[in-house]
Formats: sequence, structure tokens, C-alpha cells
Amino acid sequence: MRGRLTVLTVLLSTMIAVAAPQDPLPSWNDGAAKQAIIHFVQVTTDSRSPKFVPPEERIATFDQDGTTWVEQPFYAQLQFSLARVVELAPKHPEWKTKQPFQAVLSGDKAAMAKFTMNDLIAILMATHTGMTADQFSAAAKEWLARARNKRWGRPYTDLVYKPMLEVMRYLRANGYKVYIVTGGGQAFVRTYAEKVYGVPPEQVIGSALETQYGYDAAGNSVLLREPKLLLNDDKQGKPQNIYLFTGRRSVAAFGNSSGDREMLEYTQARRGASLEVLILHDDAQREYAYGPAKGLPQSKIGTFPQSLYDEATRKGWIVVSMKKDWRQIFAFEK
Amino acid sequence: MRGRLTVLTVLLSTMIAVAAPQDPLPSWNDGAAKQAIIHFVQVTTDSRSPKFVPPEERIATFDQDGTTWVEQPFYAQLQFSLARVVELAPKHPEWKTKQPFQAVLSGDKAAMAKFTMNDLIAILMATHTGMTADQFSAAAKEWLARARNKRWGRPYTDLVYKPMLEVMRYLRANGYKVYIVTGGGQAFVRTYAEKVYGVPPEQVIGSALETQYGYDAAGNSVLLREPKLLLNDDKQGKPQNIYLFTGRRSVAAFGNSSGDREMLEYTQARRGASLEVLILHDDAQREYAYGPAKGLPQSKIGTFPQSLYDEATRKGWIVVSMKKDWRQIFAFEK
Repeated sequence: MRGRLTVLTVLLSTMIAVAAPQDPLPSWNDGAAKQAIIHFVQVTTDSRSPKFVPPEERIATFDQDGTTWVEQPFYAQLQFSLARVVELAPKHPEWKTKQPFQAVLSGDKAAMAKFTMNDLIAILMATHTGMTADQFSAAAKEWLARARNKRWGRPYTDLVYKPMLEVMRYLRANGYKVYIVTGGGQAFVRTYAEKVYGVPPEQVIGSALETQYGYDAAGNSVLLREPKLLLNDDKQGKPQNIYLFTGRRSVAAFGNSSGDREMLEYTQARRGASLEVLILHDDAQREYAYGPAKGLPQSKIGTFPQSLYDEATRKGWIVVSMKKDWRQIFAFEK
Repeated sequence: MRGRLTVLTVLLSTMIAVAAPQDPLPSWNDGAAKQAIIHFVQVTTDSRSPKFVPPEERIATFDQDGTTWVEQPFYAQLQFSLARVVELAPKHPEWKTKQPFQAVLSGDKAAMAKFTMNDLIAILMATHTGMTADQFSAAAKEWLARARNKRWGRPYTDLVYKPMLEVMRYLRANGYKVYIVTGGGQAFVRTYAEKVYGVPPEQVIGSALETQYGYDAAGNSVLLREPKLLLNDDKQGKPQNIYLFTGRRSVAAFGNSSGDREMLEYTQARRGASLEVLILHDDAQREYAYGPAKGLPQSKIGTFPQSLYDEATRKGWIVVSMKKDWRQIFAFEK
């Protein structure tokens, strides 16, 4: 009897599934953006369609900061670096009187707001190098488990966009290999990408430091993180590194700023169908508003100038309004 | 009736499969090497074994030249470079009187035998750069389709070792992700790796040149190959790049020379089970003999010194004798 019941259950659930096909993007409001994504997946996976893409070529690339999770007011990795300065300070007594470390240690927000790119690089190198790859991963994991974002009082990994997780899941269910292609540090993002996005480490492409091959005290081989940038995964670096890592062009690409422009161009230049998407931050109430429309403040982080908006319109790239297109932003919201 | 017959057929073939399990490595003679490979796959995929490796961590890395195909008397890619010199010569009249190109164009074998590393780099840069990534792939494919190896009169891609293809297939059938990790050019190997090894381009790690992002005449984005080495995928470069590309340690690694030593060390230093294999070229009759044993000639290509042999013995790395362990070397042999 039990066998028959199982068969019946399977039959019934199949019938229900056929009767009411599940919405693959339930956190998206109906509109041009949602329709464009669904249409793209349908035509590229239907073998009778002229836009069909063979399974092995189905590569989708996602920027991270501002595209799949919150990047304001500072990137999570920058917060991690600042926390590391405080943590490592006992080993660096000279930091008490040396900038930019002094500003961080004394909590001088006015000085920190004026940090130059060189200041940030000095902090990054001091906090991300001089340890083995495994030691760095452990430190990043430990911080991510304990740190809380101030505005939401939640771990940074809770601040991922539910609509984008749905797009990733939908693409994977249709044979797409999903990559993160981030200007952020590859080693940092790899510590949580599998758990948070379902993206394994080998599908995380990001900025990377050189490593030095060596041995630990027990004679086992280790990789030491060196203060020298090997890959700068921003702007032109994104298509360059997508090619370096995959030997292919992406078929779908998602970004949110000028740093993603070349990745979208590279995607569109492939022969055959492609999808280019830009996330527009225009929802100050539920997240942040720093998009391109007149009157919105321009942040240094996630720059989306009017010229990029115009280019998107001209080239048929999809601009997603977080305010209008997303029914829900975070999974923790009811 | 037809439905019942199908069920019966399935049942029967299952019974046959259970009764006579297929040998996963039919081109291997029974012996310690074959047994070690099969034992490794069994214990790392049996969830009750203390040496079980979770599916997502199952990474196997293979050197190419001398490990999965013939590398003597010269690497195939070097032959490609020399052919390219002849092909490109009309566009470079200065090569007629300029070394090392003059030696290649006049077929001066004595001079070519004395080429230094700098000569080879000059030839590589002149023949592998100044074109788009797509143009380079097309040139490599065209040459591979037409070139024939002198000794066997066959395309270079026929000179892959059947026993190693069997190992790759066996590992894949047991959930391993198979990577090529070659000192050769990543872009060159990617043009045939899928067809020849079943390894997709995103699983080919190799030496790589920098690319420059630009646009073709139609305004489409392209990547231009630059005469600057980005990744040197040899020796320490192998573990460094396995980490860069995958964020993991390999669980099984296969090589044949000093260039693979660090990759094997890196594999063995992982926590848990691992497999390290070196292919020993000791079969002058069926292939070449340039292994480590006394009396065998030492080639500059595929250097396997006695010290590496001793290290392998000391560390429990498997040394495969092509002469004794391989029943058949090439698929085209009867």
C-alpha cells in the first residue's frame, strides 16, 4: 500500500506543478525587467529557439557589492579591514602615531572620511597580507560570524538581495554556471559565497594578491599572501579575468556601477543572445538611493553616472529599479 | 509488451553489471600503480570511509606535457610557434637577418638546437601576441588540424596517453572535477582540451599572457594578447594558480617532472586523503625513455632527476612505469 501511495503522491504533485507553474522570481514585481530576465532564460534554453545557447556556454556573471548585497555606506570588506587594524594593533605599536592607522585606532571619523585611495591600500595591505591563505580565510570567517551591520543590526551576509538570489537560482536551474565577478577580494568572498549564494570558490573571480609558495613549521606547503596586487578585478579587469578564468564570454551579466560597464559590453559583444542588467539604487527608504537620476546624491561607492544610464538605454541593457521592480529586498523582511 | 521488455532489459543489464564489474583502467597492467589509483578512488568516495572526501572538494589536477600526451622531442606548442614564424615571415622581412627567427626560417637545425630560453621567449612572444584572443584560438585550431607529428605521422592530439584518459574518466565518474594544470599556454590548450580530454576551458589552468581590453572595427569589445607574462604556471606557479583558480587544494595530482614537484607537495599537504602520481618515461620502444634511472639520457624537456625519484619513494608518491604499468599507450594502437 505504501508504494502505491508514493506513486499517487508523485503523480498528484506533478499534476499540481503542471497546473500552476511556479513563479521563478517571486520577489520581483511584474514589469519589463522581470519579463526580460524570464524571456532571456526561455529563449536561450529552448533548443528550437534561434537564440538557444548550448549548455556548456551558459555562463552568468554577477558583480557583488551593490549588485547582490548592500555596499553602503562602506563595503563589508572595508569594515573588516578596519576591524583588523584594531585587532592587529597590539602587534604594531607604531600605528598609534602613524596614519592612516592612527585615525582608525582613535576612531577619528573626520580623518577617516578624508582617506585617499593610498590610505585604503595601506590599510588593505597591512590587514590582508603576511599570513597564509588558510589563516586569512579563518580570520575573515570569524569576523563575518560576529560583525553586525549598524543599520539593520544583522550579519553582513544577511544583507544579500533576495531578488538576486532568485535570479541566480533560476539561472542555475536552467543550466547556467553562476560566477561572482567582484572588484572585492577573491579570497574574502570565497569564504562565504557557497553558503550565501550557492557559488563554489572556483566560481568566484575577484581582485587577488600574489601568493608566495613556502612551508610551515611542520614542513607542509602553504601559500603566503604577499602585498602585491596580481589581479585588479574592476572595469576592464572584469572581462580580462572572466576570459582568464573561463576562456569564454559571459552570456548574462549583472552589475550596478561604472566598474561593471566593460563586463556588460563584453557580454553583449558575444555572438548570439545575451542579457545585460544594471541594478539602480533608488530606494532610500528600504535600502539606499544613489542612482543616476538628477537630485540623487552621488556616492564614491557604486558610481552610476547619468552617462551609464544613457548608455544602458541606448544599448538595450536592463535597468532594474529597486524601488519599482523589487517587491521584497531582503529575505529577513516579512 | 514493449514496456515489460524494457524493464526486463534494464534488469538484465543491471545483473550483468553486478556480476562482472567493468575494469575502469583497462589499458593498465595489474600492479601497484593501478591498485593505488583504484584504492584512492574507492576510499575517497565511500561515505563510510575515514578517508571520504566530500564531492565539492574532489579536485584532480593533471600536468599536460609528458603526463597526458607526448612532449618529446619538443612540446607541440613549440612546434606550433615555429610553424607560425614561417607563416608570419612575409609580414616581418627583418626576420630574414634577425636571430632567432633567421635560424627558424632557414631551417638551421644546429642553431635551433642551441636556442636559449630568451630565444624561445622571443619566438613565443612574436607568434602568440598582437592579435585578439579569438584570432589566436582560430590560428591554434587551424594548425592542430593540419600538423602531423613526424614519428607517428598523426595529429598531435592523437598522441594522448590512453591510460591517462581512462584515469580522467574514472575520476569524473566518481565526482572528481578534472583540471589540466600546464606550464604550457592556457589559451593554446583550451582550444582542444574539451574534445581531447573532456576538460572544459574553465578547467584549464596554464601559463597566461596579459590581455588588453579594446574594440574591433565594428566597436565590439575584444581582448588583445600582450607580450607580457601574467601567470607562469610551472613549479611554485602550479599550486599558486590552483589556489587562484579554485580556492582549494587538489586531492589528486599527476605530473612527470620537476615542474610538478610543488603541485604534488601542495596536494599531499591537504588534510585527509590524497594521491600523488609521477609518470616515468622509460619506454624507448613505444614512446621515449628519459626517466631518472642511471644510463637514461637526461633531456632538457620533462626533467625527472634521480632526486625527484628518491623524494617520490620517500613520500609515498606513485611512480608509474610506462613500460611496465601501461598495456597500451595510444588509442590508435591495436
